[in-house]
Amino acid sequence: MPTLLLSKKEVARLLTMDLALASVKTAFRIYQGARMQQPPIVSMAVDAHQGELDLKSCYVPDSELISIKIASGYWNNPKNHRLPAMHAPLVLLAGKTGYPLCIMDGSLITGYRTGAAGALSAALLARKESRTVALVGAGNQAFMQVMAIKKVLDIQEVRVFSPNRHRVAAFKKNLQDHLDITVIPCEGVEETLRGADLLITATPSEKAIVKRDWVKAGTHIIAIGADMAGKQELDTSILKAAKIYVDSLSQCLERGEVRNGLLQGVFPASHIQGELGDLLLGNIEGRRGEEDITLFDATGMALQDNTLAGGIYQLARERGLGTRLDLF
Amino acid sequence: MPTLLLSKKEVARLLTMDLALASVKTAFRIYQGARMQQPPIVSMAVDAHQGELDLKSCYVPDSELISIKIASGYWNNPKNHRLPAMHAPLVLLAGKTGYPLCIMDGSLITGYRTGAAGALSAALLARKESRTVALVGAGNQAFMQVMAIKKVLDIQEVRVFSPNRHRVAAFKKNLQDHLDITVIPCEGVEETLRGADLLITATPSEKAIVKRDWVKAGTHIIAIGADMAGKQELDTSILKAAKIYVDSLSQCLERGEVRNGLLQGVFPASHIQGELGDLLLGNIEGRRGEEDITLFDATGMALQDNTLAGGIYQLARERGLGTRLDLF
Repeated sequence: MPTLLLSKKEVARLLTMDLALASVKTAFRIYQGARMQQPPIVSMAVDAHQGELDLKSCYVPDSELISIKIASGYWNNPKNHRLPAMHAPLVLLAGKTGYPLCIMDGSLITGYRTGAAGALSAALLARKESRTVALVGAGNQAFMQVMAIKKVLDIQEVRVFSPNRHRVAAFKKNLQDHLDITVIPCEGVEETLRGADLLITATPSEKAIVKRDWVKAGTHIIAIGADMAGKQELDTSILKAAKIYVDSLSQCLERGEVRNGLLQGVFPASHIQGELGDLLLGNIEGRRGEEDITLFDATGMALQDNTLAGGIYQLARERGLGTRLDLF
Repeated sequence: MPTLLLSKKEVARLLTMDLALASVKTAFRIYQGARMQQPPIVSMAVDAHQGELDLKSCYVPDSELISIKIASGYWNNPKNHRLPAMHAPLVLLAGKTGYPLCIMDGSLITGYRTGAAGALSAALLARKESRTVALVGAGNQAFMQVMAIKKVLDIQEVRVFSPNRHRVAAFKKNLQDHLDITVIPCEGVEETLRGADLLITATPSEKAIVKRDWVKAGTHIIAIGADMAGKQELDTSILKAAKIYVDSLSQCLERGEVRNGLLQGVFPASHIQGELGDLLLGNIEGRRGEEDITLFDATGMALQDNTLAGGIYQLARERGLGTRLDLF
């Protein structure tokens, strides 16, 4: 039996934000029903080359698919080796037999599913008339968040800040190539927040870069950057003032933005409203009024990789895309 | 940059027991120098289909190779799906950049490197004039152990027992197709041990199947089967009487044959002589005389997969074997 191999280009042809949104919704439903096995993430730090590696694995009985994503980040690759910073070979096995069904480039999947999770939180928690997004960070994840949110809210303006001006210029061009949207480069975080309905933080920051006074009532915040212990983007007083939702309680307590406030004793764990999946299923309460500050803390789940990769695999088979090779 | 894909057939053309022996020796030297990162094994049990999955990963700075082996075992596959019970896609990344250099079938690697580790223990610990092997179990690993040991000792006779007579018959034919050796099927474990110089246990047993009285002075024992908590092949009194060497102290304490005797208080951890790599390097003492019973407890290491897969990758490039595909 041949294994299907899908290159980055082939995945790019199949992967859409609509597929990502549907797959992430499916993932949150599965998660809330605990209908999956998701072992702890295995991490390696390759300090000599400023690299890191995460193995994210998940088994979903509903689809009978096991996924293993081997995600590496080597931040000096573009400069030193003319290679992408991130690689992510992803292997899909049949849950019934362990047979390796498909090996694909999973590097685009992370961006899409993380964007889709942020957008799902915006659809559930942001004020419906939200028009302006404050964006801190101008990398790939910042881009994916806006691409995804535009699918669920009628966003007209993005106010963006990054200390890297070249990156902001590239971000503006790239986003306007894809969307009919106004992009306003700002001089600092405070300026991005003027008149903003949503705040997205997508930086590798290790200390708070957003102050409480800058966040107006009614804002929905999507906290993407902090995904491991030691990272922080928001002043803990913002989290104290907000209604907080997380993708995975166990992961966020261990490596999310909420970890910082909990460790410092700014608020107790009971301050967290619950998981986004429970909000999606109507099990917990969302925004109560126009004045609430709501916050979604995302750390990313192997389960989201699993459902999205499964969708791509199915599309590839339907459309006859990819290379079939007898490997195993 | 293309990624090299190596099928099971191509790996079979490149993989030899000599390469496995050399690679496993290299692995033990690296391990004793702690020149690697070897995260904990990630395991999933797919109980609905009697399947299991282990992710074994390792980074070796010496070679700048990161390996991830995705090893599954679905014991009903041959009967229910006409598929092998074991699959093991193995991904090799460049340690310097994270780039996926090679994806190969790693299912043969496990057998070869485990056989080679057993043979290395025999070369270091068995009596030089050993001629007769008692073999409990007649599966693939039993076969690989004999194939490997024949490389380091002048073995003339294999006395084999398995409750499955068909398997014993197939084992005998298969081994005699490969080696000039006498194979004697036995009616039970006790009978295999009559006159044996070496004892190899390679079963999935969960209780002791070898009694102390059956093991004569001077025997070298290779305990392969017990590689996770709950498995046992040897009466703990055998371990108490033996000089014990392990592949990895931390792994064997957690999931090796020695775990059972320690848990039952039959002997203290200090009864274990040390790691085979330290014996290889001359850091610890081996067999003292003809009467010693020596024992090697093997749980298998991701590091061994790494060095052997690295050797196969290098050979494949030298010989121009495999399929090159732009995937990432």
